[in-house]
Amino acid sequence: MAELIEQDIIRELYESVDSQTTVHVGRVANYDVWDVTLPDGRKAKREIIRHPGAAAVIPVDEDGYVTMVYQFRHPVSRVTLEIPAGKKEYGEDPLVCAERELQEEVGLKAGKMQLLTELASSPGIFDERIFIYLATDLTPCDVNPDEDEFLNIKKFHLSELVDRVMRNEIQDSKTIVAIMMANQIFNK
Amino acid sequence: MAELIEQDIIRELYESVDSQTTVHVGRVANYDVWDVTLPDGRKAKREIIRHPGAAAVIPVDEDGYVTMVYQFRHPVSRVTLEIPAGKKEYGEDPLVCAERELQEEVGLKAGKMQLLTELASSPGIFDERIFIYLATDLTPCDVNPDEDEFLNIKKFHLSELVDRVMRNEIQDSKTIVAIMMANQIFNK
Repeated sequence: MAELIEQDIIRELYESVDSQTTVHVGRVANYDVWDVTLPDGRKAKREIIRHPGAAAVIPVDEDGYVTMVYQFRHPVSRVTLEIPAGKKEYGEDPLVCAERELQEEVGLKAGKMQLLTELASSPGIFDERIFIYLATDLTPCDVNPDEDEFLNIKKFHLSELVDRVMRNEIQDSKTIVAIMMANQIFNK
Repeated sequence: MAELIEQDIIRELYESVDSQTTVHVGRVANYDVWDVTLPDGRKAKREIIRHPGAAAVIPVDEDGYVTMVYQFRHPVSRVTLEIPAGKKEYGEDPLVCAERELQEEVGLKAGKMQLLTELASSPGIFDERIFIYLATDLTPCDVNPDEDEFLNIKKFHLSELVDRVMRNEIQDSKTIVAIMMANQIFNK
């Protein structure tokens, strides 16, 4: 679901796409340059990194504990604390992807999955969308991580995770968004 | 500030970098492929998109109203509602960048700027960090947008923005994080 924006604002800001060129094809993402027409009629170029998207899950048990993963992340050169997540295949149902990652990374099945948001991680340059689900009614199953993925699983209470976000100790966007939205649902 | 993680978890998950190659140089970002050594000694390749980072500001007035911007975003093919933000130059002080964007995009100066978080927008693939500030004690000044940037400025009450986040109507990661963290500060 997207926001309802007044038509005159959309007309005032709309930029049309004249052509799309992929200038680098990577294994994980592609780098595009698009020729666009600005609202005043001038021409410009926009660089866009294209990615198949991802799904992420915040699994919250009946006592308010969340199963999280530690993982080494090269782009930030350190170990981060994140919710379970994984890349989607092009065209894959994000719910199927989220359920798979929940099972593979932390060994949980959810009786209930609720879509929280379709996060745009960096919409000025990057087209990645991360579908974030709240998973409840959890039952354990086998953990089965990808062979080149090294994870350490740990549980935290949701209230402690909110405190860590507010102390700038958790910095991953999907993880902060999931924690703060789940907190709003459970502690309203 | 980064999270304090137990040393044995870091040792267990650490991946060393053997070499870094830039395979595409863009105007906005670069595409890298790194050779790394996994925790079990095997070798792997990691793709990393490199970006100079950004700064963003949530300006909240004494009545709880937030000055926001509508903007067309090609990566998501639509107009989005976001907090004021802009790309940092390499080496630029993020606070200086945040103050500039606040003045240029929405014509405000802040008596107080408080760092909320150093967001990692997508740390599995993208090294972008977005320094997000809470701006208060606001005074108006001239708006002065970049010449190829088209914006529509509108104020919303913080509580309405939280409702829009919870309805999956605002999807930009930095904007959701700023709204939810500011709400936690003002409505605790």
